[in-house]
Amino acid sequence: MGKVYVVGVGMTKVGRIIDKSLRELAAEAAFKAIDEVGNEPPEAVIVGNMLSSLIEQENLASLIADYLGLRGATGFKVEGACGSGGAAFLAGYSLVASGLFSRVLVLGVEKLNERPTPDTSRGLAWAADSDYELVYGVSFAGLNALVMRLYMSKYGVTREEMGLWAVLMHENGYYNPYAHLRKKVTLEEVIKSPVIADPIRLYDACPISDGAAAVYIASEDVARKLSDTPIKVAGVGNAVDSTDITSRFDLDEFLASKLSAERALRMAKLYVKDIDVAEIHDAYSIVAMLSIESIGFAPKGRAPKMLSEGRFRPGDKPSLNPSGGLKSRGHPVGATGIYQIAEITMQLRGDFPGLKVGGEVGLAQNIGGVGSNVTTVVLRR
Amino acid sequence: MGKVYVVGVGMTKVGRIIDKSLRELAAEAAFKAIDEVGNEPPEAVIVGNMLSSLIEQENLASLIADYLGLRGATGFKVEGACGSGGAAFLAGYSLVASGLFSRVLVLGVEKLNERPTPDTSRGLAWAADSDYELVYGVSFAGLNALVMRLYMSKYGVTREEMGLWAVLMHENGYYNPYAHLRKKVTLEEVIKSPVIADPIRLYDACPISDGAAAVYIASEDVARKLSDTPIKVAGVGNAVDSTDITSRFDLDEFLASKLSAERALRMAKLYVKDIDVAEIHDAYSIVAMLSIESIGFAPKGRAPKMLSEGRFRPGDKPSLNPSGGLKSRGHPVGATGIYQIAEITMQLRGDFPGLKVGGEVGLAQNIGGVGSNVTTVVLRR
Repeated sequence: MGKVYVVGVGMTKVGRIIDKSLRELAAEAAFKAIDEVGNEPPEAVIVGNMLSSLIEQENLASLIADYLGLRGATGFKVEGACGSGGAAFLAGYSLVASGLFSRVLVLGVEKLNERPTPDTSRGLAWAADSDYELVYGVSFAGLNALVMRLYMSKYGVTREEMGLWAVLMHENGYYNPYAHLRKKVTLEEVIKSPVIADPIRLYDACPISDGAAAVYIASEDVARKLSDTPIKVAGVGNAVDSTDITSRFDLDEFLASKLSAERALRMAKLYVKDIDVAEIHDAYSIVAMLSIESIGFAPKGRAPKMLSEGRFRPGDKPSLNPSGGLKSRGHPVGATGIYQIAEITMQLRGDFPGLKVGGEVGLAQNIGGVGSNVTTVVLRR
Repeated sequence: MGKVYVVGVGMTKVGRIIDKSLRELAAEAAFKAIDEVGNEPPEAVIVGNMLSSLIEQENLASLIADYLGLRGATGFKVEGACGSGGAAFLAGYSLVASGLFSRVLVLGVEKLNERPTPDTSRGLAWAADSDYELVYGVSFAGLNALVMRLYMSKYGVTREEMGLWAVLMHENGYYNPYAHLRKKVTLEEVIKSPVIADPIRLYDACPISDGAAAVYIASEDVARKLSDTPIKVAGVGNAVDSTDITSRFDLDEFLASKLSAERALRMAKLYVKDIDVAEIHDAYSIVAMLSIESIGFAPKGRAPKMLSEGRFRPGDKPSLNPSGGLKSRGHPVGATGIYQIAEITMQLRGDFPGLKVGGEVGLAQNIGGVGSNVTTVVLRR
């Protein structure tokens, strides 16, 4: 299997972006990444996106590749709900590792705020099981709320402990110029914020974001020509779980998160303890806790306690989400996984424009559905 | 690059299928393919689909893998409009060729008839450019009609010559037990059928179909264990073109069809003249003509004349669409590319249940949009 390196990254500011079309957002991120490799055009463009159907556009790889001036390139879209970006990275990785291509641009883009929030919320729920769960009227936040209630009850976690995650994320994201919500919040504000789906409150949930991010990956020989600071893709793993939560054997662990992290680390010949910095998928506070525990950064039920003891902050090993995570950087759904990989790349290169935590080894984990499509990427300087 | 073989195939009957859900259709095709390899479970499930958003369900790889009993497997969905199946095959191919996996199921599924036809037609048009073309009210058939008018005028092609394709396809498809429209039609019926978008008439257009197809692919060593008749994936190529037709340099050639065929043939170290049998993407008669010419089976503007001379029938080299093509077998959008690969596999194995044309080398070409996302696969016995 050929070795694969990240040689260029680009991203747009995340936010409620009304004045740029989907292709314009995508191009902004793509051209930054292509610019980093001296404008060498990629041979293939793989696009992560979940909900462009809401704005009546499919066939995104052709649309975007053409807009980038790359007619005749290879391209397709990859979808795995909110995990679309990570899954697109796996597809792009294998195109290079196979030897089929030596220069591939993996791009994530999502434009949600063109539609009213109820439509977007409805679309996001398509990550879950329409036939057997959504039909009863449950929302995506509602499904996560059920998991959160179970978790807090089973492990005796307090509302205050669950609120610490949002406080930390807003503190980190405050320094990230690309973040959607750049403001610090107090624990009091978090635990008194409006209820979305009890026990999930406003600050337990990520915002509805627009944005695009791109990573340019290359084979070993090409990477050395295109970059002075190539970052090695040491491992990548993806796993799926049921789209419904009703039939899960164990609701307080994300099996697919655990498996995908194990696979990526095994491929990298590394252990959880080797990770210096990670970007994890905190769509809700509960998703952050379960991710931390499923990856193995904390024993089951212990993540909130460790958080309250001051762990996972910038400078800790691991530092979690120096970008501010989905909560503060935001969650442009199909782009989120690519933001994470771009952010970890910049942390390892030392040029992330927000909080710099540095490190030798980084991990990015992107989740679709309630832990139903998970991709983990391990990067190494 | 590791060699890749098709070791199992499965498909459902194509049609207007109301009594089976999307996951049930997918499972029917998947289990047939998995059964062909002695029920050895695949490690990954890659799903080609375009429009499941119309029935409010995304995250299909997780949904289907779970329904197949494959929780914990790897999976994602691939979309490239009507070319989603072919693009999914490329993604699956590279997962095996890279050495990441040795057993991958590539599955295409589409369920369109749950929604009223106007909604489906609207969705299908998302393959084109929403911002710059659809906004003017043109339909997908309308875009193809413009190309057909230009082609007929430029090359002096008669209405009768264009009608011959539908006659041949319905003749071939009549023998295919999986076909959507199993009936022979006369040239008179074709050229007097109702106008859809002038000059496209009813029989110039494929039906709106539901269906699922699966191909099980494996690495060389595993393929020998799983099958006595592995069919080699000799080449695979994909290319994109603009989603709008307004900005094309040349409207009477599909650049992406040409490039993807060239790439697949170059990889296979074969020439167009080596192809014994091909399944091409005849969504409209005009798309068949341009595919035939762009691949290189006929010089520019000559396909209708060659057809009227009796070429491309069963037993000719190449035999085109012994399945009946999109016109008669039908066009379950994201599944079509996988049907084509499954059909060619069965032709080369000698067990296609419809018209058998045999051969050593076969080609499948799947098109998304108006020639904007094209994947070509070359298979060899």
